[in-house]
Amino acid sequence: MTFPFPTYTDRRQKLLETFSGEGRILLLGNGEAGMNYRGNTYPFRQDSSFRYFTGIDAPDFALLIDTDSGEETLFGHEVTIDDIIWMGEQPSLAERAAGAGIANRKPLQELGDALSSTAPVHYLPPYRGDRTLLLQEWLGKSAAEIEAGVSEALIRAVVALRARKSAAELVEMEKAVILSAAMHTAAMRHTGPGKKEAEIAGLVEGIALAAAGRLSYPAIVTVNGQILHNHYHGNAMQAGQLLLIDAGAEIPSGYAGDITRTFPVGKTFTDQQRAIYELVLQALDDSIAALKPGVAYRDIHLGAARILARGLTDLGIMRGDPEEAVAAGAHALFFPHGLGHMIGLDVHDMEDLGEDLVGYDEEIQRSAQFGLNHLRLGRKLEEGFVLTVEPGLYFI
Amino acid sequence: MTFPFPTYTDRRQKLLETFSGEGRILLLGNGEAGMNYRGNTYPFRQDSSFRYFTGIDAPDFALLIDTDSGEETLFGHEVTIDDIIWMGEQPSLAERAAGAGIANRKPLQELGDALSSTAPVHYLPPYRGDRTLLLQEWLGKSAAEIEAGVSEALIRAVVALRARKSAAELVEMEKAVILSAAMHTAAMRHTGPGKKEAEIAGLVEGIALAAAGRLSYPAIVTVNGQILHNHYHGNAMQAGQLLLIDAGAEIPSGYAGDITRTFPVGKTFTDQQRAIYELVLQALDDSIAALKPGVAYRDIHLGAARILARGLTDLGIMRGDPEEAVAAGAHALFFPHGLGHMIGLDVHDMEDLGEDLVGYDEEIQRSAQFGLNHLRLGRKLEEGFVLTVEPGLYFI
Repeated sequence: MTFPFPTYTDRRQKLLETFSGEGRILLLGNGEAGMNYRGNTYPFRQDSSFRYFTGIDAPDFALLIDTDSGEETLFGHEVTIDDIIWMGEQPSLAERAAGAGIANRKPLQELGDALSSTAPVHYLPPYRGDRTLLLQEWLGKSAAEIEAGVSEALIRAVVALRARKSAAELVEMEKAVILSAAMHTAAMRHTGPGKKEAEIAGLVEGIALAAAGRLSYPAIVTVNGQILHNHYHGNAMQAGQLLLIDAGAEIPSGYAGDITRTFPVGKTFTDQQRAIYELVLQALDDSIAALKPGVAYRDIHLGAARILARGLTDLGIMRGDPEEAVAAGAHALFFPHGLGHMIGLDVHDMEDLGEDLVGYDEEIQRSAQFGLNHLRLGRKLEEGFVLTVEPGLYFI
Repeated sequence: MTFPFPTYTDRRQKLLETFSGEGRILLLGNGEAGMNYRGNTYPFRQDSSFRYFTGIDAPDFALLIDTDSGEETLFGHEVTIDDIIWMGEQPSLAERAAGAGIANRKPLQELGDALSSTAPVHYLPPYRGDRTLLLQEWLGKSAAEIEAGVSEALIRAVVALRARKSAAELVEMEKAVILSAAMHTAAMRHTGPGKKEAEIAGLVEGIALAAAGRLSYPAIVTVNGQILHNHYHGNAMQAGQLLLIDAGAEIPSGYAGDITRTFPVGKTFTDQQRAIYELVLQALDDSIAALKPGVAYRDIHLGAARILARGLTDLGIMRGDPEEAVAAGAHALFFPHGLGHMIGLDVHDMEDLGEDLVGYDEEIQRSAQFGLNHLRLGRKLEEGFVLTVEPGLYFI
């Protein structure tokens, strides 16, 4: 648990108030994920929505809520004496349920029976194969039927709650940013000609782990920052190059940081590097200044695009009228991604629930235009939203 | 690729010679594994058998071999211009196939059709849900049928080859051990009263990552070493305590290290700690000295158990006759696991193929006795086997 249990009972109460469907809500936690065999697992990562509504950060739990009666049942494994010998003291199923304020508990093996009645079951989109297999078995459906059967009503209710962060969540998110910033400043101190990208990547991840956290997403540490998702860390760095680091920490409470910075390997920019850096920094500062409830993030994105296009025109890299260039999407040759995204328990918050239901609303729908089609977040900002602002210029 | 391509064609040729079944052999590579949503992935880890037979270390490939004609086809995705913009230069499907010495290549989407003929399809046990879902779809079977349908003939042929390491593999395994040892010596230098277990865990993992490797299994870094699989890293270390570190590196070629050491947080042992340490060290040294082809590893395990039981009796911790105690399994109260396991591309090598087919043979079958039932490796040793020797004493 991250917060005291009333946090979770409150959230579930609000979920029932927000939810427009009928029947049962099934919130399914994650299991362990085998890496090269079942027993050699990747670090456990709980499903973010399950953690948001229960606080439970352990594998193989599920919560079933009857939306008529409000009855809640936590399904999970009972801790055995073997578990304690092999893995140490752990909370019992009863303690897990009590910690989350859930009245009833049952063995996970009984979930299939519990789901077999005819009342509808609302579940979120599974994104791991093993969860799809469980839903197949429990609901007696094919993989395609499971995928088609996800509940938009449940997605909408979950997004409405998770999108607005509480004061207590903001405290956690500050911690995630502070740890992420420490990773970047350590990297800047240790970067220098002759060092390998992988050394810095290891340093950055080691800092997150040493703070009992982890990376919130695979780090990018590269002298070839023009390649957007470049996870190759084999280059030796040279003076005159720029090092791009896109890395954030996830802290023990599950909240993510996400910071990208570009700086000179040899400690000083060339004039051209400095001009581009200052231009991106201006787009960042002006975009942050423009953030307020009621403004569509798509418009802030376009404002950043105009700043970048004007700057590139001034530098002689783009030609013609910058406003027209942005209207035609030409800036996307240099700024090919969206300005940012929601962030919270996921680095792209709630991406598993579908970008269109998270980043857009009735009023603002995803554009098909080159340069806008990749925008994860376009909707009007509301109080409590937390998002990234990350303009960038890429010269491929 | 780790080795030049004839290595892989040779291995596949030997696979066909060793394989006793008929029809087609399907070797299925791993895909990316979503952590908290599909797009936020755990570090990619190729399936070890797929890598062993192809050298390909990238997601979503499959190799189909017709055992009659010997015809081989690599299935995978063609690299698009978008892939190159977002992820950098990558080998084409044709280059992947050529690099592995595979004559034919096809898009992965055509694999389902290719499998639809009536000739039997031999596949290894899937251990990731997403691979089971693919096999379901391609073979038109249920999850239970996929599990029941794995090929023992293919498992036996793969185990026969992967169990005997080549000279080139031994070079890689030495590298994995050297990096693993560097992690341990750095940890010993940095350990001290007041530091947190997590700091050392982060240091250890950061070293593996900085060398472009990773952990070969989740590290154990704990002052409560008596709990066997203790992944809690939240304690501050105190003088007088022992720190147990069980951690190994996986190097870029995929080979695993696995080292466990226990040492005093405050740099000096108490007399009792030293006595126990020396006893375990004696069991280690004597077991290593006893290794040779033709000896059953179960007997070396029992030899270690007798050394430990005699030592514990001398120290007044066990009573009665040590030989009788071991015969009755009483040593397992203090030494509850097997002496070791095969190691190679997996830290528990080929555990996905089934411990009984990897660690046992016709002659030596798994024992049901307390103390022997957990033994992963019991069979007679052969030239080329690589295994761990890891006696331990646990006081719960």
